[in-house]
Amino acid sequence: MSPIAFDNALLRIYFFYASLLGVKMLAMSVLTALQRFKTKTFANPEDCHMHKVKVSHNESVERVRRAHLNDLENIPIFLLISLGYLSTGPSYDLALYLFRAFALGRFLHTFVYAIVVIPQPARVLSWSVGYVVTIYMAVSTLITLL
Amino acid sequence: MSPIAFDNALLRIYFFYASLLGVKMLAMSVLTALQRFKTKTFANPEDCHMHKVKVSHNESVERVRRAHLNDLENIPIFLLISLGYLSTGPSYDLALYLFRAFALGRFLHTFVYAIVVIPQPARVLSWSVGYVVTIYMAVSTLITLL
Amino acid sequence: MSPIAFDNALLRIYFFYASLLGVKMLAMSVLTALQRFKTKTFANPEDCHMHKVKVSHNESVERVRRAHLNDLENIPIFLLISLGYLSTGPSYDLALYLFRAFALGRFLHTFVYAIVVIPQPARVLSWSVGYVVTIYMAVSTLITLL
Repeated sequence: MSPIAFDNALLRIYFFYASLLGVKMLAMSVLTALQRFKTKTFANPEDCHMHKVKVSHNESVERVRRAHLNDLENIPIFLLISLGYLSTGPSYDLALYLFRAFALGRFLHTFVYAIVVIPQPARVLSWSVGYVVTIYMAVSTLITLL
Repeated sequence: MSPIAFDNALLRIYFFYASLLGVKMLAMSVLTALQRFKTKTFANPEDCHMHKVKVSHNESVERVRRAHLNDLENIPIFLLISLGYLSTGPSYDLALYLFRAFALGRFLHTFVYAIVVIPQPARVLSWSVGYVVTIYMAVSTLITLL
Repeated sequence: MSPIAFDNALLRIYFFYASLLGVKMLAMSVLTALQRFKTKTFANPEDCHMHKVKVSHNESVERVRRAHLNDLENIPIFLLISLGYLSTGPSYDLALYLFRAFALGRFLHTFVYAIVVIPQPARVLSWSVGYVVTIYMAVSTLITLL
């Protein structure tokens, strides 16, 4: 068993993309809020009060919320899996390209899902980039650790 | 490039708040269950069976679930971003105050959202404390790593 | 204060289960997609187009989504709490059994919830295994760090 050691250069990639993807994910809350105000659609009576509307449901709001939920399903687990992957000692270039691909896929996914709706397979393709990167990292890690 | 090194004192803050916020988040599951039993509102036929009710929907249950979802949107990503922030070598006191502010904001958010409903802007203010702390940490990390 | 040091053998357990549980969680997206195609139930107009159906709602799809949401509520926070727990220096055997129990509980939970629906208390029991392990780790960490 070789010791688990984190290379500084790899950790820099990791923390850079953790912050970048984190901010991207947090931006979804603001995007949801903007849609709520624009369409006067609120989920709580106390939010409706000042706008003199009732609790309602709006497809533009739900679309942003589904994009946000998709981030929740994919980004935190990527960050947890990829930390293990980096401990297996991949090459710097490969690691960097994988993180870039994941981030690009997630930004594109949100764009085609919730900013400018683009017909399928735009969403499934952009989603699958991040999915495949994460599965690849997980399987690499499992094989190394077995 | 200075080496990435985690200070033991900073890691102690991190793991302390990871556990505290983790337990807070897990408590939301119990709070949801309590509301479900109190209002006899269940999401699955197999849960309804023993109470002789049908699958239904209740605003008190949904309110706790929305507070829980808000935790899911904010707490794991804070813990992933803040680990990177700690690697940039902030002062112990600043780091401690930021973690305290984040935790306080999240506890208050749940309190005014799902325990005792307090009119806006109570919820948006308590939510924004954690949000601003997380964005600050992410931006600090990105600037340091660029 | 003893220094925080991660034992290599413990980190190997951690990264192994982070990858395993990550893949398990990501598999829920595919399971949801399979149910959507099987029942022709889609959440977006652009997904409905090629199947000539309208946006609809289906209980089999929702069941898988609820199991997925339960993973989101429990797995990432376990991975964040358990990292702190490992830093407190537990015995290798205890740590291994706790990770195994958590993983087994989560796999069983999904099985009885979304694969073959088994009456309660199957779901609540399998869920509680992971819940109790996570709370135990969090409380252990908090006591050690206080």
